[in-house]
Amino acid sequence: MRDVSIIGIGQTPVQEHWDRSLRHLAADAVLAAKRDAGIERADALYVGNMLSGEIAGQEHLGALIADFCGLRGIEAFKIEAACASGAAAIRMGYMAVAGGLADVVIVVGVEKMTDETGEAVAAGLALAADGDYEVPHGLTFVAINAMLMRRYMYEYGIEHQDFAGFAVVAHQNAVNNPNARFRSALTPERFASAPVVAEPIRLMDASPIADGAAAVVLCPTEQARAFALSVRIRASAVATDCLSLHDRRNPLRLRAVEESARKAYAQAGVGPDDIDFFEYHDAFTIMAALSLEASGFAEPGKGTQLAREGELALNGRIPVATMGGLKGRGHPVGATGVYQVVEAVQQLRGVCGANQLPGPRLGMTQNIGGSGATVVTHILEVSE
Amino acid sequence: MRDVSIIGIGQTPVQEHWDRSLRHLAADAVLAAKRDAGIERADALYVGNMLSGEIAGQEHLGALIADFCGLRGIEAFKIEAACASGAAAIRMGYMAVAGGLADVVIVVGVEKMTDETGEAVAAGLALAADGDYEVPHGLTFVAINAMLMRRYMYEYGIEHQDFAGFAVVAHQNAVNNPNARFRSALTPERFASAPVVAEPIRLMDASPIADGAAAVVLCPTEQARAFALSVRIRASAVATDCLSLHDRRNPLRLRAVEESARKAYAQAGVGPDDIDFFEYHDAFTIMAALSLEASGFAEPGKGTQLAREGELALNGRIPVATMGGLKGRGHPVGATGVYQVVEAVQQLRGVCGANQLPGPRLGMTQNIGGSGATVVTHILEVSE
Repeated sequence: MRDVSIIGIGQTPVQEHWDRSLRHLAADAVLAAKRDAGIERADALYVGNMLSGEIAGQEHLGALIADFCGLRGIEAFKIEAACASGAAAIRMGYMAVAGGLADVVIVVGVEKMTDETGEAVAAGLALAADGDYEVPHGLTFVAINAMLMRRYMYEYGIEHQDFAGFAVVAHQNAVNNPNARFRSALTPERFASAPVVAEPIRLMDASPIADGAAAVVLCPTEQARAFALSVRIRASAVATDCLSLHDRRNPLRLRAVEESARKAYAQAGVGPDDIDFFEYHDAFTIMAALSLEASGFAEPGKGTQLAREGELALNGRIPVATMGGLKGRGHPVGATGVYQVVEAVQQLRGVCGANQLPGPRLGMTQNIGGSGATVVTHILEVSE
Repeated sequence: MRDVSIIGIGQTPVQEHWDRSLRHLAADAVLAAKRDAGIERADALYVGNMLSGEIAGQEHLGALIADFCGLRGIEAFKIEAACASGAAAIRMGYMAVAGGLADVVIVVGVEKMTDETGEAVAAGLALAADGDYEVPHGLTFVAINAMLMRRYMYEYGIEHQDFAGFAVVAHQNAVNNPNARFRSALTPERFASAPVVAEPIRLMDASPIADGAAAVVLCPTEQARAFALSVRIRASAVATDCLSLHDRRNPLRLRAVEESARKAYAQAGVGPDDIDFFEYHDAFTIMAALSLEASGFAEPGKGTQLAREGELALNGRIPVATMGGLKGRGHPVGATGVYQVVEAVQQLRGVCGANQLPGPRLGMTQNIGGSGATVVTHILEVSE
């Protein structure tokens, strides 16, 4: 297997794009990534997307976007793994390059969600849950996370306000990200007084849906040495779990996060202590806590403590959501996993401005589908 | 890169499965393929599916089906490329094994379409076409193929009845396939008198939608030698084209078929004359003609001649649709590409009963998404 590097990145702002269609957003990101890498052609294009069929009225995104980006003819597919679709597409690109089936692969994650009503989007997101055993009982995706959060608070004696730190740090970091949806700081008081969405989840526990696209260009590290700004992919690891919470022995243990992180650490030959920053999947504050714990950054039940003690800030022990995370940058579901990797590359390149960490060497990204049923973890390293 | 073989196959009957849900169909095929291969575990599961979100109310099929098949925890994604989703998933499995990222991969194609109304299914299938430039003008998927067929008849001076042979040979072969949806022979007279769907397409030009699932197990050929019934994948090749007919210089040339077939022939080091049978994508009779021509089995405009002269029958020059094809076996869209490969493996194993070809060595399968925008071609060879 070949070592794989990222030689180009591109992204659109995450917002309500009333004047750009799904294909335009994807093209904006792909063309930016191509320019960034200084390449003209690619061997394949893999698209991460969850809801284009249901919301944008368009499947067959692979061929569509390849054509629209001036890449007509190349191999192109869409990959879907609910909210983990973006990183799943990167995983596919990684496989193609690592395995020697392609030399230059472009991966784009794209989602256009705000053209639809909130009800339609909620129904769309519920397709990530079990359509036979969860959704018919009235469970939305927020409700599933609310049950997890309630259970967590009960088991560990945690108050709702203990989760404030996750949202506060995300919003703080989003202030300096020109591509973030919400560039406003958040106080713990505002977190506490936000309206209830699905008890105990309040508005500021939840990440916002959005429109957006992000893209990366992959090639063998051997060839990437010609590019000054390349970043190596040290690990690419996937694990799954059952969709339904009721099938899990202990819903507070995200087994797929544990397994995906374990495999990633093993591939890279590192442990959590070696990771300089963590682009985690803070779709809800409860997911932030659970993924920190399952990834080895905190003991079970101690995730919120990291937030309370300031360890997740840019100058903390394990900075997270360094450009705003899902909460601050926004969560265009099928694009999110690619945004995470794009932002990690920015950190490793040292171009994050006010949010720049001091010389990070290893960054970890983790994209979670459903309530932890599909987890894709990547570890990226600054190139030598 | 490693040589890849197929060591197990499984399929459900193609029909209206009122008593099996989408996950049950997928599990039926996966468990049959596991039994056939004699394996218990796999490293990854890739799911080919187009419309589960729109029609079955379920995305996130990778984790769902992995869990339901007793494979909880393994890497699992859904791949979508319209009607080519099944073969696209096989392509992904091929990449994982060829590239050394996985040793045992299961690929399942599944689609459950008949729970919905015909209108909803037609709207779903139209998602394969261009949602901005084709569908809003009222074009259904049948209408797009009707335009192609009309143009073909005009350019080459072909009558509707000249297409009869494609449907007749498919139905003839389906008679002996216990998994086929329509096990009834078709006469040219019945073809001619079928009701019009979208002029000039009549009912017997079009393949039927259906429910069904098919699965294959892949592993490196080196390890496959332990399995008596393995079949080698000699080529796996993908090409794309623009979605819209109006963007193609000559709509009667399926460029992606040409390119996908060209790459496949080059990989296998063979030409059309070396292919013993062709599991082609006869979604419509016009697609049958165009894909035969673009794959090098007939000159442009001469595809129907092959059918008229009996060259597509089991004892002809290039047998097609040997177990009924999309027209006779049925076309559960995201599953079709896997059915084609499963049937090709059956031919190469010599287990096709009354439809068995005499000692075939090389079989080609070709799965087409949209009106030729994504094409996945595989060449399979009987193992030594």
